[in-house]
Amino acid sequence: MPSAKSKVKLALCQLLTTDNKEANISTAQSAIKEAASNGADMVVLPEMWNCPYSNDSFPTFAEDIEGGTSQSAAAMAEAAKQHGVTLVAGSMPEKHAGNLYNTCLVFDCRGQQLARFRKMHLFDINIPGKITFRESDTLTAGENIAVVDTEAGRLGLGICYDIRFPELAMIYARQGVQLILYPGAFNMTTGPVHWELLAKARAVDNQLFVGVCSPARNMDASYHAWGHSMLVGPFGQVLATAEHEPGIIYADLDYAEVDERRKGMPLATQKREDLYELVDKTHKA
Amino acid sequence: MPSAKSKVKLALCQLLTTDNKEANISTAQSAIKEAASNGADMVVLPEMWNCPYSNDSFPTFAEDIEGGTSQSAAAMAEAAKQHGVTLVAGSMPEKHAGNLYNTCLVFDCRGQQLARFRKMHLFDINIPGKITFRESDTLTAGENIAVVDTEAGRLGLGICYDIRFPELAMIYARQGVQLILYPGAFNMTTGPVHWELLAKARAVDNQLFVGVCSPARNMDASYHAWGHSMLVGPFGQVLATAEHEPGIIYADLDYAEVDERRKGMPLATQKREDLYELVDKTHKA
Repeated sequence: MPSAKSKVKLALCQLLTTDNKEANISTAQSAIKEAASNGADMVVLPEMWNCPYSNDSFPTFAEDIEGGTSQSAAAMAEAAKQHGVTLVAGSMPEKHAGNLYNTCLVFDCRGQQLARFRKMHLFDINIPGKITFRESDTLTAGENIAVVDTEAGRLGLGICYDIRFPELAMIYARQGVQLILYPGAFNMTTGPVHWELLAKARAVDNQLFVGVCSPARNMDASYHAWGHSMLVGPFGQVLATAEHEPGIIYADLDYAEVDERRKGMPLATQKREDLYELVDKTHKA
Repeated sequence: MPSAKSKVKLALCQLLTTDNKEANISTAQSAIKEAASNGADMVVLPEMWNCPYSNDSFPTFAEDIEGGTSQSAAAMAEAAKQHGVTLVAGSMPEKHAGNLYNTCLVFDCRGQQLARFRKMHLFDINIPGKITFRESDTLTAGENIAVVDTEAGRLGLGICYDIRFPELAMIYARQGVQLILYPGAFNMTTGPVHWELLAKARAVDNQLFVGVCSPARNMDASYHAWGHSMLVGPFGQVLATAEHEPGIIYADLDYAEVDERRKGMPLATQKREDLYELVDKTHKA
């Protein structure tokens, strides 16, 4: 990792997403500026920061990132460069080769794109009377993990429902990731019971930092996000948390704690690899 | 599974363990009798129910279960038969072929031994100024999982520190386990922050019931157990919980909820087995 900081100030931006893409981009730009002015090294945006979370919106808001014509990606690259921060640009709908993806981009503080992660586990659930959603009606699942060396640490990326699959976090931990970031929009059924639990579980099981970054709750939208963006330390401590309103929360991470926790309780070396083995068949993006 | 009940009353016995084995056996017998009289189908004892949790005590309290001379095992078999309950007899120190193990036995309601599980991940931790323990100074780790078909459901077993390893729970879930029981004695450092979290995480990730059964806290002993025996449902709900005092807590399990939760959110079929794979190299005990 090239001269990464061991102490990092992280900003999680819980943005209110509307059905106006221009307004959403402007909101994100303002938040990045504010976070940078408050000393953030790394700024994180929520899942679908530029688009309402709905199958109706994904196709019409999607942009061609690979083709270099993405207005939203260009704006985020410019914002990262202008304000000199590592930017984990939540997620946005991406169109590529006839498919749509739920895609996270990471930019360094010079505006260079470091990584692209496409949501690996699509959110298809049906809890009658509570919450029904089928991302697979419009989206295609990604195939690659993303281990990203930034000036603010080695990151792993997942998006929302990806947090329910311990295997992904375990793969990241094995690859030396210090911080897993999950932009995510849990809902009013699963949010209250599972959002904080899953963030803490991934952190404690893998002894690393976990950040979850949600859109603010928009009661005018069809999907009501739980909010509660949060940063959890490697012993399961909540280092910063929001309620459901728009806002930016900050947390100071000291990656030395990862080593300290692992020294005290060396879980990785205590795994019984003679009895079970997680085989990683992924490729890095 | 031979005519297993779908609705089960579970009793978790949070017993006060002393340095008097006879007294510990008597305490367990009384608890089993009381739980049965209150309608429990399955009774669970804590980790090291017949022995203080200390490396000094394990060798002197250990019994030869395989050799058929174990006083504690015989007493538990008899108690299960006398009171007609499925008995998950927490754990006890076992000596076998020159080694010591931390061993859980399961008896059916006729007193037949159904399973023997030896703790698979030994508790070796060193958090300076907080908690230091090395089970490996006296104990040997087990090599086998235990999937146990009982009249009160299909069980998986782990002991205490085993709960920190998601792989074990994932293996059990794949084998159709409905309830994982972890007799365990967390301490005053890890208990407050991780005990409930880990029970809930294993339950929610695997969509099954999880029970954790601790000794009561004994401030006269060298090791102070956290207590807080608990039963968690497949959506992460706490169905019953204790504080740190001696006592029995009860919970009604309806295994139909396992199917219901999995139908609403089919995590097992949504795993990306094309990208990762947990290879099970264990053998059943």
